[in-house]
Parts: sequence; structure tokens; C-alpha cells
Amino acid sequence: MVVAIALEATPVPQATPSVAETLISSAQESHGAFTLLTDLVDTVGSRLSGSDGAAAGVAWGVQHLSGLGLEVSKESVLVPVWVRGLEQAEVVAGKGRRAHPLALTALGGSPGTRRGGLEADVVEVDSLAELQERAPSVRGRIVFFNHGMAVPQDYRRFGQLRTKGPAAAAKLGAVAALVRSLATASMRSPHTGQTDFKPGEVAIPAAAISVEDAELLHRLLATGPVRVHLALGCRILPDARSSNVVADLRGREHPDEIVLLGAHLDSWDLAVGAQDDGAGVALVVEAARLLAALPERPRRTVRFVLFMNEENGLRGAKTYAIDHASELPHHVAAMELDAGAGRPLGVALKAGAGAQALLETWLPPLVKLGAGSFLEEDAQGADLSPMAAAQVPFASVVQDTTHYFDIHHSAADTLDKVDLDAFSRTSAAVAWLTYALADSESVLPRPPPPVPAGTSSAR
Amino acid sequence: MVVAIALEATPVPQATPSVAETLISSAQESHGAFTLLTDLVDTVGSRLSGSDGAAAGVAWGVQHLSGLGLEVSKESVLVPVWVRGLEQAEVVAGKGRRAHPLALTALGGSPGTRRGGLEADVVEVDSLAELQERAPSVRGRIVFFNHGMAVPQDYRRFGQLRTKGPAAAAKLGAVAALVRSLATASMRSPHTGQTDFKPGEVAIPAAAISVEDAELLHRLLATGPVRVHLALGCRILPDARSSNVVADLRGREHPDEIVLLGAHLDSWDLAVGAQDDGAGVALVVEAARLLAALPERPRRTVRFVLFMNEENGLRGAKTYAIDHASELPHHVAAMELDAGAGRPLGVALKAGAGAQALLETWLPPLVKLGAGSFLEEDAQGADLSPMAAAQVPFASVVQDTTHYFDIHHSAADTLDKVDLDAFSRTSAAVAWLTYALADSESVLPRPPPPVPAGTSSAR
Repeated sequence: MVVAIALEATPVPQATPSVAETLISSAQESHGAFTLLTDLVDTVGSRLSGSDGAAAGVAWGVQHLSGLGLEVSKESVLVPVWVRGLEQAEVVAGKGRRAHPLALTALGGSPGTRRGGLEADVVEVDSLAELQERAPSVRGRIVFFNHGMAVPQDYRRFGQLRTKGPAAAAKLGAVAALVRSLATASMRSPHTGQTDFKPGEVAIPAAAISVEDAELLHRLLATGPVRVHLALGCRILPDARSSNVVADLRGREHPDEIVLLGAHLDSWDLAVGAQDDGAGVALVVEAARLLAALPERPRRTVRFVLFMNEENGLRGAKTYAIDHASELPHHVAAMELDAGAGRPLGVALKAGAGAQALLETWLPPLVKLGAGSFLEEDAQGADLSPMAAAQVPFASVVQDTTHYFDIHHSAADTLDKVDLDAFSRTSAAVAWLTYALADSESVLPRPPPPVPAGTSSAR
Repeated sequence: MVVAIALEATPVPQATPSVAETLISSAQESHGAFTLLTDLVDTVGSRLSGSDGAAAGVAWGVQHLSGLGLEVSKESVLVPVWVRGLEQAEVVAGKGRRAHPLALTALGGSPGTRRGGLEADVVEVDSLAELQERAPSVRGRIVFFNHGMAVPQDYRRFGQLRTKGPAAAAKLGAVAALVRSLATASMRSPHTGQTDFKPGEVAIPAAAISVEDAELLHRLLATGPVRVHLALGCRILPDARSSNVVADLRGREHPDEIVLLGAHLDSWDLAVGAQDDGAGVALVVEAARLLAALPERPRRTVRFVLFMNEENGLRGAKTYAIDHASELPHHVAAMELDAGAGRPLGVALKAGAGAQALLETWLPPLVKLGAGSFLEEDAQGADLSPMAAAQVPFASVVQDTTHYFDIHHSAADTLDKVDLDAFSRTSAAVAWLTYALADSESVLPRPPPPVPAGTSSAR
């Protein structure tokens, strides 16, 4: 009864501008995304692929996408299973110098050390090129990858030290690798992340050290040899079954044309992944709720996807692209949310010529959210990358990431860093842009075929 | 030879303003305090009372104060010995909720739990008064002391929750205490510190939880009962012998009148104590070097004291006050450095009527350091507190502490947080003010006798 009265008291608008109004005011007034995020992180917690937490995350996704009139399914994904263990390291005492414990955390994909750990001298490099130059001094040593990350943009610049550095060092005979955390702030808090060892190639123990400990190693190395003892108990277990969660809001006119809105359910294990990518998951589920509550469905199908295993394998996204290969030509747009909970700054695209003109007709409702600008950067996303070959147009609500890498992949990725108002504004922008993509009379022109290369490393 | 030429090329000034000039420019150009601090933290590391690190700290202090023409001695202090061990806790899984690991660290003075830990429901209070109000619900529970620390000034407001809360909870039958870290920033980084259990009274395991985990507990408690499992392996060992380091620069006219400049050698064990109180130690030793290098000694004796055990017992300061009781009436001023490495903001006093007028004649050289103001607050310091009864005048170079409690007592108290220029400015201000106190024709009037109370808890 109360609901009925409320519906009568608030006439539901029908025209397109009024849908924008409805979506945006609902998102901002209900703070629904924040409520969902709170529930996810407080009841499920961390969600590393293959863990009980990830399974609970899948169940959470199914539960919260059900009952909205969507077609909800779990789609099987085989995921790698990596588990953290003991993590202990120290700079061994030297001439006139006591030992220093190091704050560090194993990188995903790292093997453990043998029981008792290993001990070796450290050699410092600040690029993959310098590693090759110093190849003769790497054998039998621990390679320390240092860098000067200071702003979020540096993540792309230095990220390869973490993803590719340890494997490159292993090829040169290094016994272990220590990578300075990819972080824009630190309280002695190491930031994990995946490191890539190719199947069949030699893998060595690899860990991220805190920014403070990187500074320490750098200072000590300036005074003479530095020896480190490292013990890691991490292990790689057999692959396990997990799932993507897929929910379709069937389109009223073109049900076979799909607008995909995605985020990743899995997180690292050091924290609850409030921003990486709990925020994205909450934004997707809230968009589903907001769009499903409209009196009329959009013209096209909106597919809400919660991907598994973005962090350490991208298996969910790869599996989706394979399982839905025949549908990809009908994916008229895809948008991923995997940049935290910051406020919206504008919209970016990766599409064909003329896309911007179409987009600009949808921007006016976003102005009051501070997101009414077209931004000259390529929309992208790790979970979107396997769809690039099918020339799926990408869209993106670009968010403020000023403080995202303060906490990214660290134990500090917790709810308290999320600003309620900023997050609700992003939720509003996402809901409206998704609707616009799905209900517009014309669709985004498709981008040219991508230059063949590896998939994006934006995780 | 090079030294001799350098001395000829730089005529040494003789008049008082020129001494200020010499001290201030030397401190700022050499960055001597920063060099000393770097050496202390990189070669000695953490220095908890009774540890090998503390012993190395004493040796470091003696070494760096020797060879300057000072009379250096170690003065025996019996210190408590507390050692950290296993630290593990989690919110136990509940109805519809998975378990949550808690980032926490034992408080100094805490006993360990029995092997296997303890488990109990949590009751939250935000003041000692609320603890008493909720006394009937405390027995058998874990008391969670929450608070809203946001700025450095809050350390005095909420500090008693850490120092007195656990003992008060123990008296009411609590089985453990969790105290929200006293911190102005957090990356899931708990801040330790001493908690005071009186001899003979019941002690319970007590730990600081990170700000993030305090927020989590608060949210979960709003939804229903919260049960925590806590395992602490910390232990209290028998007292051990350690030392204060005392170095006198004998005065040229009034050798029996003493200006004391002190800082504390010990630190907590989670980090190297770069700012608490490595910074103070370096400032004291650098002041000794700068004053000893002057062509003429000050009129009065300057006594440089590196106190032991400020953090968890104040035994060094108490022992000093007892061992030097007969000299305290001739302590004409005492100044303590224990507020980090921030820039100098001005000078404060705790002295008798007329002191400000005398001080103001010494302030002009400090203007260019940004520290030329008399500040209307009481100079103080934990290691000075046992001298208050003897009406020793206190002086203080007040420092910027905006970010001090971001890292205070945490694993993040490392060198990289120290700003070179700010620290050298403080070093300059300290050297000059110490000289002025020791060379002035008249001395600070002594303050009135203190109101009897406990000693300061400003640690």
C-alpha cells in the first residue's frame, strides 16, 4: 500500500529527458550503490579467485541481481588458484649495521621459497632496459625493481616492472625479485598484484616491498652491498571452477543488441576490495536496479556482467568473449567500471568516426554531476580487452583516481575511503549513460580493428 | 690542510648575533641533523627498551657525542622489557557474514593471551565514562574503545582511552581490550603505544586496531552482536639494565648552572622511530656538535641527555631526576625534543613571570626560520615531567605536527617522511635557543610549584 501511494504521488516521467532525471535523482537520493557496496564488503569480504570469498561473491551477485525481472545466470569459468602464506624478509645485518625487517607481500603468481627461505645480494634496477644492461650481475642475486611512481598516471608507466620484471629477472638467473609497490601513498603498506610467469618458463619468488622499504634499500645500496633474506609460503594450487554472473534486461525493441556493463567480482586477498572492484560491482548492480525499476525498458538489451578473475588471469573476460563470440558483433557498446569510487569527470569512448557527435546528445544530464564533458582518451578496461578484436565500441565514465593508487591492491582498500557523495554521482552517471547507450535511436559506430598486440594490462 | 684553509677563509664571528648567524647557517647548510638521523635509523634501527636495538642506540649516542670535547657518560637505568609476539585477530563469521581479519598490534605492557587465543563478544564505548555506564555489560566481553581522532590535538583528548582504558575494562571483568589507533591517517596501519596496568592489578590482553577496522567493528555492531577471536603472543620479561647518555659542555662562567637539552633514544619496535624520537636524538646530538664547534663556550653548562625508556616506563627520566636531584635547583632551563621532524613554529615556555620579556630578546634570529614568535602554550615534555616538582623552567621549540600522528607509533615512522629543509630549520632553531638559554646574562625566572598530580602523559 505504501508503495502504491508513493507511486501515485510521484508521476513517472515517460520522455527521455525525464528518464535521465529519474535515474540521476534516484541514484543520488538513495545512495543505493553505497549501500550495496557496504553490504558486499561487510558480509562477503575479500574475493580472490578460487577462494571461499570469491564463491560468496558469486552468490552475492546472483542474489542481488535476482528478483528484478532480469534473466540471471552463472557462467562457468576455470580460474587459477593462488594462495598467500608466510611472508617474511629482512636486510641481513652488515658491517656496522643491524638487520632491517622489510614490509612486503608476495605478488600473485609467485611461487614460494623453499622452506627456510633464500638469501642473496641485491641488485637494483629501475627499468627493464637497465635489467638487460646489468644482466651479468643478476645471476644468483635478488633483483630489486625501483621506480618513482608519484601520480596515478605512473601506474601505466611502471606497471610492467611488476608484471614483467620478475620473469625477465628469472631468465637472467636471478633467485628472487622485489618490486617497489605501485603506490601513490604509503604507510609501510605493500601493494600486491599479479606478476606474469609464462607456463613452462622458470618462476622465481617475487614480492612487492613497501615504498619505505624501497627507499631504505636504495639508501643502503648506495653505501655498499646489501643482502636480503626472503621467505614466502605462497603456493599455486590446481585450477578451480568459478563463475561470471550475467544478468540481462531484455530490450523492448532490439533484444538481440546488447549493451554490456561490467565490473569484476574478484579482488585481491589483502583487503575487502572496496574500490577494486567492489565499487564497480556495486555500480553495476545499482544500475541494474535503477534501469529495471523504470516503467519502460530500453530499446536494447542491457547485460550486466560481474566478471571473475580479472586480477590474476582475466579468465572470466576471456571465457566470456569465447562463450559469447557469436553475440559480440551485436554488442553495440561495452562499459567497464574498475577505477574505484571517485567522482565522475566525464565520458570517454573508443568507437568509430562520428561517435562523439552521438555521445554529445547524451551529455547534458551529466553536467550537474560534473561529468558533462567528452574526454579525449580511449575508453578501455581489462575485462573489455578480449572483446576488442570484435570491434565492440567501448564507453567509459571516467572517474577521479587521484587517491585510487594510495590503496589499490593493498590492505587499505576498505570502505572508509569511499566518499558517499562522489560515489553516488558516479552511480547516477553510469545509470544514465547505460540507458542512453541502450535506448538511443542509433548506436555507436564500431571502431576500426585493433592493432594486433597483447591484451590490455589495465588491472 | 683543507680544514685550516677553510677556517681562515671564514672568519669566526665573536659577538652574540654572530653566534646566532653561525649556528643557524651551519645547521641549514650542513643538514647535519638529517645526516645523523639517517645514520641512526639505517644502522641502528628500532630501539625498544631492553632490546639489542636500544643497546645499539646507547652505543650510537656515546659514539656521536664523543670527540667533541664534552664529558660523556652512560647513566644506568633499569628498564621494563616487553616483547611483541604473534598478533592475530578476526571478527568471527556470523549469520550471513563471513569472517574478517583485523589489522592490529599489541599495546606495550599488554600480557599475551593463552595459547590459542580468546574469543568473546565485543562491547563498544567511546569514553571512560561510557565504560562505567556500561559496566554491567562488560564482564566476559572484549571492550572496544572507539573515538574520533582527526587532528593532532585529539591525541591529548583520546590518549587516555589507550593508556587507561584497558586497565579500567579489566577491573570491570573484561577479557580483552581493543583500542582504535590514535592516528590522523591510516592505511590499515595500527599504532601501538603503552597501556598502563598498575602493579598487582589484573591485566588483560590489549591491542590497537587500525582505524579501518575500528570503522568496520562500529558498522558491524550496528547490525547485531559481533564476536572476535584474539591471539597475542606478547610477553613481559624481567627488567634489564640500560642507560641514559649524558654529555656536558662545561660552561665558561657558571659551570654549575645547567641548561638541559634532551630527547629519547628508545623507540617502539614497529619501525625505526625516525620521528619518535630519532629526530629529537639527532637534533640534540647536532646541537652538541654545533655548540662544541663554537670558538667560545656558553656561560653555563649545556647538558645533552639522551633518555632511555620514554615510551614504556619513563624510567630514564625518573632515574635522571632522582640521580641528579641535588642539581635540579641549578637546572636553569630544560628543553625536550619529542614532536617529530616538522618545521619550527615558534618558542614556548613554562617559567615564572617575566620570562617572556627575556625570551623575546632571543627571538629575532629565529624570524627567518619561521619561528620568531612567542607561543602562548606551556612548554612541556614527558622526559621533563619528573623535573617539574623542582621548578625547572621549561622551554620548547614548538614544531609543526600536522602529519606527525599519521605515522606516530606505527610501522610507517620511517626516514622518508622527514622533510630535509623543515628539519634543518628546526635544528637551527634548537641550536640557537639552547645557546641563548646558556649564554644569556640572566636566566629564566622559575615557575611556581606545580599542582600535585600525575606526571605528564605526553608521549
